[in-house]
Amino acid sequence: MSEKWVYGFDELPAAEAAAGGSWDGLRGLLGGKGANLADMTRIGVPVPPGFTVTTAACNAYLAAGESFPPGLWEEEAAALARLEGQTGKRFGDPANPLLVSCRSGAKFSMPGMMDTVLNIGMNDAVVEGMAKLTGDERFAYDSYRRLIQMFGSVVMGVPDEPFEEVLTAARKKAGVETDSELDAAAWKAVTAEFKEIVRKHAGEEFPQDPITQIRLATEAVFRSWNGKRAFDYRKAAKIAHDLGTAVNICTMVFGNLGNDSATGVAMTRSGATGENQIEGDYLINAQGEDVVAGIRQTKPIELLKEEMPGSWAEFEQVCERLEQHYREMQDVEFTIERGKLWMLQTRDAKRTAQAAVRIAVDMVDEGLITPEQAVLRITPEQVDFFLHPQYDRVQVERAIRAGDRLAIGLNVSPGAAVGQIVLDADRTEQWAKEGRAVIMVRPETKPDDVHGMLAAKGILTSRGGRTSHAALVARQFGKPAVVGVAALEIDLEKRTIRVGERQLVEGDWVSIDGNTGEVFATKLDTVVPDINDPYLSRLLGWADEKRRLQVWANADYPADATRAREYGAQGIGLCRTEHMFFDTQRLPHVQRMILHKQDPEVVAACLDELLPYQRADFDGLFRAMDGLPVIVRLIDPPLHEFLPGQLELALEVAALERDGADPAKIAEKKQLLAAVERLHEANPMLGLRGVRLGIHLAALTRMQVRAIFEAACQCARDGVDVHPEIMIPLAGHWRELEMQQAALEEEGRKVMAEQGIEVAYKFGTMVEIPRAALTADQLARFAQFFSYGTNDLTQTTYAISRDDAEKGFLMEYLERGILAENPFASIDEEGVGKLMAMGVELGRRQRPGMEIGICGEHGGDPKSIDFCHRIGLNYVSCSPFRVPIARLAAAQAALREQGFTAK
Amino acid sequence: MSEKWVYGFDELPAAEAAAGGSWDGLRGLLGGKGANLADMTRIGVPVPPGFTVTTAACNAYLAAGESFPPGLWEEEAAALARLEGQTGKRFGDPANPLLVSCRSGAKFSMPGMMDTVLNIGMNDAVVEGMAKLTGDERFAYDSYRRLIQMFGSVVMGVPDEPFEEVLTAARKKAGVETDSELDAAAWKAVTAEFKEIVRKHAGEEFPQDPITQIRLATEAVFRSWNGKRAFDYRKAAKIAHDLGTAVNICTMVFGNLGNDSATGVAMTRSGATGENQIEGDYLINAQGEDVVAGIRQTKPIELLKEEMPGSWAEFEQVCERLEQHYREMQDVEFTIERGKLWMLQTRDAKRTAQAAVRIAVDMVDEGLITPEQAVLRITPEQVDFFLHPQYDRVQVERAIRAGDRLAIGLNVSPGAAVGQIVLDADRTEQWAKEGRAVIMVRPETKPDDVHGMLAAKGILTSRGGRTSHAALVARQFGKPAVVGVAALEIDLEKRTIRVGERQLVEGDWVSIDGNTGEVFATKLDTVVPDINDPYLSRLLGWADEKRRLQVWANADYPADATRAREYGAQGIGLCRTEHMFFDTQRLPHVQRMILHKQDPEVVAACLDELLPYQRADFDGLFRAMDGLPVIVRLIDPPLHEFLPGQLELALEVAALERDGADPAKIAEKKQLLAAVERLHEANPMLGLRGVRLGIHLAALTRMQVRAIFEAACQCARDGVDVHPEIMIPLAGHWRELEMQQAALEEEGRKVMAEQGIEVAYKFGTMVEIPRAALTADQLARFAQFFSYGTNDLTQTTYAISRDDAEKGFLMEYLERGILAENPFASIDEEGVGKLMAMGVELGRRQRPGMEIGICGEHGGDPKSIDFCHRIGLNYVSCSPFRVPIARLAAAQAALREQGFTAK
Repeated sequence: MSEKWVYGFDELPAAEAAAGGSWDGLRGLLGGKGANLADMTRIGVPVPPGFTVTTAACNAYLAAGESFPPGLWEEEAAALARLEGQTGKRFGDPANPLLVSCRSGAKFSMPGMMDTVLNIGMNDAVVEGMAKLTGDERFAYDSYRRLIQMFGSVVMGVPDEPFEEVLTAARKKAGVETDSELDAAAWKAVTAEFKEIVRKHAGEEFPQDPITQIRLATEAVFRSWNGKRAFDYRKAAKIAHDLGTAVNICTMVFGNLGNDSATGVAMTRSGATGENQIEGDYLINAQGEDVVAGIRQTKPIELLKEEMPGSWAEFEQVCERLEQHYREMQDVEFTIERGKLWMLQTRDAKRTAQAAVRIAVDMVDEGLITPEQAVLRITPEQVDFFLHPQYDRVQVERAIRAGDRLAIGLNVSPGAAVGQIVLDADRTEQWAKEGRAVIMVRPETKPDDVHGMLAAKGILTSRGGRTSHAALVARQFGKPAVVGVAALEIDLEKRTIRVGERQLVEGDWVSIDGNTGEVFATKLDTVVPDINDPYLSRLLGWADEKRRLQVWANADYPADATRAREYGAQGIGLCRTEHMFFDTQRLPHVQRMILHKQDPEVVAACLDELLPYQRADFDGLFRAMDGLPVIVRLIDPPLHEFLPGQLELALEVAALERDGADPAKIAEKKQLLAAVERLHEANPMLGLRGVRLGIHLAALTRMQVRAIFEAACQCARDGVDVHPEIMIPLAGHWRELEMQQAALEEEGRKVMAEQGIEVAYKFGTMVEIPRAALTADQLARFAQFFSYGTNDLTQTTYAISRDDAEKGFLMEYLERGILAENPFASIDEEGVGKLMAMGVELGRRQRPGMEIGICGEHGGDPKSIDFCHRIGLNYVSCSPFRVPIARLAAAQAALREQGFTAK
Repeated sequence: MSEKWVYGFDELPAAEAAAGGSWDGLRGLLGGKGANLADMTRIGVPVPPGFTVTTAACNAYLAAGESFPPGLWEEEAAALARLEGQTGKRFGDPANPLLVSCRSGAKFSMPGMMDTVLNIGMNDAVVEGMAKLTGDERFAYDSYRRLIQMFGSVVMGVPDEPFEEVLTAARKKAGVETDSELDAAAWKAVTAEFKEIVRKHAGEEFPQDPITQIRLATEAVFRSWNGKRAFDYRKAAKIAHDLGTAVNICTMVFGNLGNDSATGVAMTRSGATGENQIEGDYLINAQGEDVVAGIRQTKPIELLKEEMPGSWAEFEQVCERLEQHYREMQDVEFTIERGKLWMLQTRDAKRTAQAAVRIAVDMVDEGLITPEQAVLRITPEQVDFFLHPQYDRVQVERAIRAGDRLAIGLNVSPGAAVGQIVLDADRTEQWAKEGRAVIMVRPETKPDDVHGMLAAKGILTSRGGRTSHAALVARQFGKPAVVGVAALEIDLEKRTIRVGERQLVEGDWVSIDGNTGEVFATKLDTVVPDINDPYLSRLLGWADEKRRLQVWANADYPADATRAREYGAQGIGLCRTEHMFFDTQRLPHVQRMILHKQDPEVVAACLDELLPYQRADFDGLFRAMDGLPVIVRLIDPPLHEFLPGQLELALEVAALERDGADPAKIAEKKQLLAAVERLHEANPMLGLRGVRLGIHLAALTRMQVRAIFEAACQCARDGVDVHPEIMIPLAGHWRELEMQQAALEEEGRKVMAEQGIEVAYKFGTMVEIPRAALTADQLARFAQFFSYGTNDLTQTTYAISRDDAEKGFLMEYLERGILAENPFASIDEEGVGKLMAMGVELGRRQRPGMEIGICGEHGGDPKSIDFCHRIGLNYVSCSPFRVPIARLAAAQAALREQGFTAK
């Protein structure tokens, strides 16, 4: 196979052809960084010469048991020779040395997860040559020691600590605070010690041959694809493990050649708010890694305008050019070498949800993208951020007055998070597993900390900026984060943190605000923010125009319904009536009814008590949803749920008996226990509930229907436009529906006759067991609508008891990759989905145009919403907080179906 | 609509045309009795003239709110006029009166369930005329009082008791024992009193007009279709409620005109054994109802040969003619009026299972029917009788020596039944509902007693013969019965029974033997009989030739497998391995393993203990099934099933703590309780079991597979032809199968390598949750066979927890007719069956010719077997005792598919 493994940055057309012509294919082949370097080269952006070794090469290398497949190294060596020609420099030539960087670059950005080696090409001879050429011995040795350190660490597996110890000792010896204060002699000595460290730890010398350096670095980058931290990151970010990484070999440019040199990272717009202005950090006289490592205090990019106005102007132009080209906000790395701007990387920038929305809307206004693209660019999860908790400002003010505001840092990832302080990633993960809320507090974060960051409620660091590792990762995974809190002193040994006089120990509660950067030494309550962001409103407005699916909400109380409506719900898809029975005023009547369910008189008396409550519940709901449909589900859960637990009660009776308690009290408890025992079921999920209960205890559902119709009639009389739809749960056989529906419809008609007013209504059923879907045509003879109860449908189709399994084997399945997805989170399309599609087809065959929706929790899951769109449901119904998300997801489903894409 | 409602017995062609030409249609239109009367008339059998009012007329009458639809009565009146012409007699003419009977006759025989009125046409004038015409005043008044009594009871709703009181008083007054000893004067007086009773109870006079009598009697028969006892009977016998009954009006002939007259009932062969000789009972000088009522002691039919040789010869000829014509054993009613034989009814005879099999086989030998017809004539339930329990003869001999054999009666319905004496039907039903075994003991049974007979284990009566109500019903419903135990004295008031010196009270235990007629005053143990009846063997041999489905058996132990093989099983479709773990020697190891399942060393140690046991189990099974496949299912149930119950344990711990028990003991119990709590699941049916457990506790299934392969290798070395098939339960996703199967197959190969011998094997899965059927194509990539676990598949498809529901709402559903059938008894074809058909189609699409069977309990249910045949399964697997039944049912399914019928 004559595959080409290596492409120069200036060989884009050949790479495109090899990748099948698509941008996605090109990114797959060259990695995101490599593709962008080549692309920037083509559009005239200043990029240092270099080339990319493809992801295919990486995969071939890994597949061959970590050895170069035939031809690969030869091709890379040829590319190196070509690079010498392009730059007019030569590897290992002290008089004119060619130095390169070696960076990983996968298809999807994995910041800091894989390895980089800079300054490759230096050796004992070259360093001397460079000192002469630049006239800066300090720079030359600083560069060389960096290579030895990075190469030692990345390629030769030497730990970081001995290098750091040498640096600390050097600073101490020189009596200085920072590395930049060390002079040439110091660096020369450090270099010698570094080489000794490498020899000692790796058992061999630091290689002097530049070509060997490149070869070994290439291999190290390849191998880093399968490193633990990269693997964990991919798992969390749902990136496929078989993509491989490319390796980018790029001519070195130096930001540390003096005060006319600089290096920095920037985003073309604000990653926090989306405001259209360049945002970033830079350092004068520094190498690139210094900026993202968060070690030196960076300068905000605005200062560059003053410090290097010429470079700034060129940089601004490049940024605009890049946005025009990619039609996306970019995240760039640049270096200014003696006044000359070089772009080292560009990629689509990460941003907060708020920023993403604003940028998408702004770009439509700027004519960069269409509204369809804007809608497709925002992920439903991003909409979710607008619903994230925030702190109640009154409480915040109180905390401030009480002196509980510890500090203010950088607000790099929005949202409010409350938790106990933990000072390392492992313990964070451990505590979180125990169900504790944790705020992970670190001086700075590293890729090794990601498992802790994922487990934490929020992240707090004393160092780092907006583009620090902590900020990037927190934003990507939606964790509230405050970074760069300089006032924060962390003592990792004593497990304490201190701000001024105030000391907290690990385990103390803190509250952080990712929106404001505030840190509180107390446990604050959170509230849900207002969703009426003007940019989001415009975006969702476009979404509403594009979608075919309606979005309804599951709401049991009028307040929920009102909120759902504010969020854009077009109906109530599920009002669970049994929640109402748990109210303390009502539960005694419910329990009495259950204990005497064989006695029609007692049952009737209890129902008489319950009727006014239920009627009032429905009345509020109908008024809140004036003009929109409201689906009320009749009682569903097994009766024992309204009674105390059998085990507790049995132990209580045993205890009372042994204590010689009042016999009357014992008798009463025993009677209750007997009732609980009678109602006990081995598998309540598959037991006496839903329509079965409605048939068994017919008076109860009759009362519920009476309450619905009495409320509806009253509302209608008051001019409210009511659309009650009564839903019978758990039907599995048409005879159940025939019997239950006839009895209930009779009651409804009776109420309307009594009240002298007619309201439009529907009767329908929940499709939540496989048999209902399999015989949907028969059910549709009676049911005027279907609503998929996908929680139960998944439980029965998969034979998985959700509550049990999500604590047990299902988690094991997900962890071990036996199941790729939790079927309770996203609809199992191959199994449950097949039944759903069958139900739609059979139902509408019997009753053309039948109203069919979904009210299981999947109704708020974007992937499931896409599926619901594809099988032709009329609506999805989800929790009020998911309504905006569902509106977007429904629009995206429609747009995708019509062939629209985000780019 | 110009429908014809009435057909003369001599108008068969017209009726046939109206019924669409089929015999089934004709029976539907005229009822079984009417169709046969017309048919007998056509083939020249002596039948008194008469006509049939159709079932359609009945339905029209009932549909019209119990009133004659237009034209019906006019047509019946015309038929009556025609009857006068045919007989030359006239209604109400004292000089030449025409008397008729009015009998119900539905499509399917419902003996005694509906009403009959004899001697219609008599009145105060006719009775005098008849006295003169016959010269027998006693006969005339006896006939008249019978009409008044029957008419009063059936048509006018007068209770029986006052009539019986009058008769008792009359006998007492005359100082005689039986009615036949009463003289004319006595009957005349009784007649007057009967008319008075009618007047008093009905509030009106007994109608004197014969035409009115017929009209009212016709209506009464129509209405009796919806009477409670007819309704209950149809429900029990699964006869549709919308068929309606016909009314047969037939000229009266009299068996009570002196000693040259007689009446009787007979079967053309033995209803008990099937032997080819006429069997029946008759009475000289009696009317027909006297025979079946069981009131007078009848004579066996053989005696007729001596008493009336001429009539006997004619009767024998008629019986043979009828058998030739119907190609079935007949049950006939006849009357001899002054030496002239009249046939009043013929119908297919009821018979014991043994008789049915012998008759079918004999009729093939006699050339009357084909083997296919023979196979289709035997119901699977009849084969079941051959497997019914019988008494151990050793115990019986012991009981006889101990003086516990109370009496010997008529062995009218086979099988052994043991239970407590109950003396009425209501209490029988009550006790049976409470789970008690009851023998219902009655002087005789009546249609009102059927609910008790159905609830009883067996029936014992002191009166009645082989054709008595008790005998017929017991046989039809397969209840062991002994009748006509003359020695038995029943005191309904004191609730005791007595035989000679021995007195038993209600609640005492008795054992009856329907095969021998013996009654024991003790509780005997039953044993299962030998199935090697030569007639049955021939029949099943024919069945085996006709069927496409194989029949396998579910067997966990070698002894079960041996029995299954004797019964004709062609493989083991399900060996449940977990049963083996409950053995007292093994359970401690199992429990220890569960308690320490996180500790691989303890688990391994426990499994080492269990391995030899499992290997020995499989060894025996493979040897028993030499040459045939054996499907071994890996562990299926949730682990908590091997531990004590949570509630019991919690109460025990509480008690120990309060009693201040040994702390070590408490700690031990608490540890166990904690483990039970950890394993507790809200819905274990949908929990950690089957393949989920196999994955979770991989070492356990690995041990099981090792045991299977070690046993198989050892057997193979000994020359046994082993075919192990390993079944993974509860798979729902192909990844489960991929993972589990690979690990297990590896273990199997390892064992074979160790043992140095190869055996053929298969890996497959149980399809028992909806998702497995829905994704059967994916599962079939791994599974080499499927076996439908329809118990669980029904539970999940229907969302019904079997154990809970069969104690609860499912029974309510069946009682209220919401579900026509228990889906755990017969496959729910519309729901579960749809999934099964889908699974077969998808599975074989992926793996052509794939072996697919069923191992749920439905595998032994004839209706489900028919379904399994239709969807193309390879085999059904059922309990060993159901194997012969399944062999027949499978053959019937194949024959039905090919268009064969029983007739």
